[in-house]
Amino acid sequence: MKFNVFSKSGYARRGELNFLKGKVQTPAFMPVGTNGTVKALEVENLLETGSEIILGNTYHLMLRPGDELIKNFGGLHKFSNWDKPILTDSGGFQVWSLGELAKITEEGVSFQSPYDGKKCFMSPEDSMRIQANLGSDIVMVLDECTPYPAEYEQAKTSMELSLRWAKRSHAAHQSNSALFGIVQGGMYEDLRAQSLEGLEKIGFDGIAIGGLSVGEPKEEKTRILKYLAPCLPSEKPHYLMGVGKPEDIVEAVFHGIDMFDCVLPTRNARNGQLFTSYGALNIRNAPSKSSNEPIDSECRCKVCKNYSQGYLNHLDKTNEMVGSILNSFHNIYYYQNLMHEIRLSIESDSFAKFIKDFYNKRHLEVPKHLI
Amino acid sequence: MKFNVFSKSGYARRGELNFLKGKVQTPAFMPVGTNGTVKALEVENLLETGSEIILGNTYHLMLRPGDELIKNFGGLHKFSNWDKPILTDSGGFQVWSLGELAKITEEGVSFQSPYDGKKCFMSPEDSMRIQANLGSDIVMVLDECTPYPAEYEQAKTSMELSLRWAKRSHAAHQSNSALFGIVQGGMYEDLRAQSLEGLEKIGFDGIAIGGLSVGEPKEEKTRILKYLAPCLPSEKPHYLMGVGKPEDIVEAVFHGIDMFDCVLPTRNARNGQLFTSYGALNIRNAPSKSSNEPIDSECRCKVCKNYSQGYLNHLDKTNEMVGSILNSFHNIYYYQNLMHEIRLSIESDSFAKFIKDFYNKRHLEVPKHLI
Repeated sequence: MKFNVFSKSGYARRGELNFLKGKVQTPAFMPVGTNGTVKALEVENLLETGSEIILGNTYHLMLRPGDELIKNFGGLHKFSNWDKPILTDSGGFQVWSLGELAKITEEGVSFQSPYDGKKCFMSPEDSMRIQANLGSDIVMVLDECTPYPAEYEQAKTSMELSLRWAKRSHAAHQSNSALFGIVQGGMYEDLRAQSLEGLEKIGFDGIAIGGLSVGEPKEEKTRILKYLAPCLPSEKPHYLMGVGKPEDIVEAVFHGIDMFDCVLPTRNARNGQLFTSYGALNIRNAPSKSSNEPIDSECRCKVCKNYSQGYLNHLDKTNEMVGSILNSFHNIYYYQNLMHEIRLSIESDSFAKFIKDFYNKRHLEVPKHLI
Repeated sequence: MKFNVFSKSGYARRGELNFLKGKVQTPAFMPVGTNGTVKALEVENLLETGSEIILGNTYHLMLRPGDELIKNFGGLHKFSNWDKPILTDSGGFQVWSLGELAKITEEGVSFQSPYDGKKCFMSPEDSMRIQANLGSDIVMVLDECTPYPAEYEQAKTSMELSLRWAKRSHAAHQSNSALFGIVQGGMYEDLRAQSLEGLEKIGFDGIAIGGLSVGEPKEEKTRILKYLAPCLPSEKPHYLMGVGKPEDIVEAVFHGIDMFDCVLPTRNARNGQLFTSYGALNIRNAPSKSSNEPIDSECRCKVCKNYSQGYLNHLDKTNEMVGSILNSFHNIYYYQNLMHEIRLSIESDSFAKFIKDFYNKRHLEVPKHLI
């Protein structure tokens, strides 16, 4: 993987990731393909939204259908017919989300498979082997996500474990794929700095920020992001994991983030929550029923071109799969178009104007820390 | 609507239906779009399968979202973005399927909406008005489906009611769309003949056969079909309602049927039942899990080109919507390709050879009545 930054607008960066499997324009949004497919969107549709890279969930895939099986099919790209880049997470976050069903030791994580109750164990070395079996283009180190809230000592212990795991991940990583480290440290700036310093010493191809959007107030997230931004190595891609809403992405780009992933556009789509230039639209609400208007009159996606809110409201009410398909298409298209417009504005050094327009259309004031 | 028969092979006919909204090659298969969408297939996909006409269910659409609402959107074509021909059923069959929740009188059918419990009533005149609101290209008369088994007197009474309703439907039909009559009469040949004669006296644009595939043994269906075949008016399209499996379609084409509809390909797809040249394949079964083979090595659809059984097995096991999408696409493509090959064989007067090959590939003997 090669990474180049072409232009900047403030901290915001316009770049390109270069893989054997293709190029990815940054800032980039990665739709989440939990089970080897982005929910409700077949590959053709996904390409049509402008998606250039997707995320695969190691935890889900190692359990079903199993990473060895996927390896036998020639890797996740061949298995799923997606031949552009894939980033895989380490599986750690999903295990961590199991709560009491998971046990974390120095050696790694133990947990029960929710499918067959089988006891499973994953070390940093296992995670590297599994992600290699999947044939990932960007491999993530195994880390422990620090919960919120966490006392200083707890956050410190957790961050230090993640750092030791990062070292073991790095040592075990043998494929040609890129390997990203993950900054932890909870809401403590000095711990975040130590984590980043430790990762930089080991040497990774990219730096991810983990342990945000885990329940903390928005101000806390902003504070950590703002603190970390100037410290991130400028020659490497910066990836903010699991983020987020359109406004969160805009904020993070402002702070110099290059990569994002989030289940929000697809999950919300299935619940009738649609993203528009003017804010969110709930297609289930009464006004949509008789509306011949598209979801978003400014959107140029095929759904907005061909279908009314009334039709989508009807599909939602009748639980028709095509409703989820069209809603998901629109939401992912919205996200990709948002990234496209962000990139254009950085190229022309007018990201500040982009932010102003973004908030104006929503009839909201631009938050002070983004001015 | 105009209908031309180009060529024949035995009773089998190769023709074309001509509508303002486009041409339909016959014998034709119509995917079922119950709620104004074929389940799991957006319009683009449906076109890619070669579908030229779809069926809309009047009963479902009149209740949700309501035919007046659809009329306000410019009709079902505009509402659903399908701009090729649409055939709508009368709503009678679905009401009849409600069993004890429906009451049939001379005037029409009374029933309770399963959605809000509201009392509904539909007369033949209502059905015509509703189908006109939907903007259907082929309107079906309201009929009563005779149950199986039925005593002679019951079947006679029911058939005669259907005939009176056919007359009222014909009188009330005012749009430019085609209107089809429906032959009833249960398993009694003389009643079937009387029904057909009565319909011909009224004068319809096409003749449908109803009241088959309602639970009778296969031999009974074959007997009625064989009996009716030579009696059907040769200048009009013949439509066998709600049929069926690939072998049922082949048999009916042999007897001179031109049009079919059935939920089987889409419903089975959602349950992992896939159609192939060699018979049915259950993608849920163990052998598919590790198979890198396509569903059907002879099929040229995009699913068979791009995806393995192993991947589809995985999508099915993880309940991923994309599994239903890909399975539905393949099954509808299979049906449309079956119709395409049937049409080619009739053109070259080799339908008998087609039937032989069809059964040979399944390692089955050709049924005697098809030789």
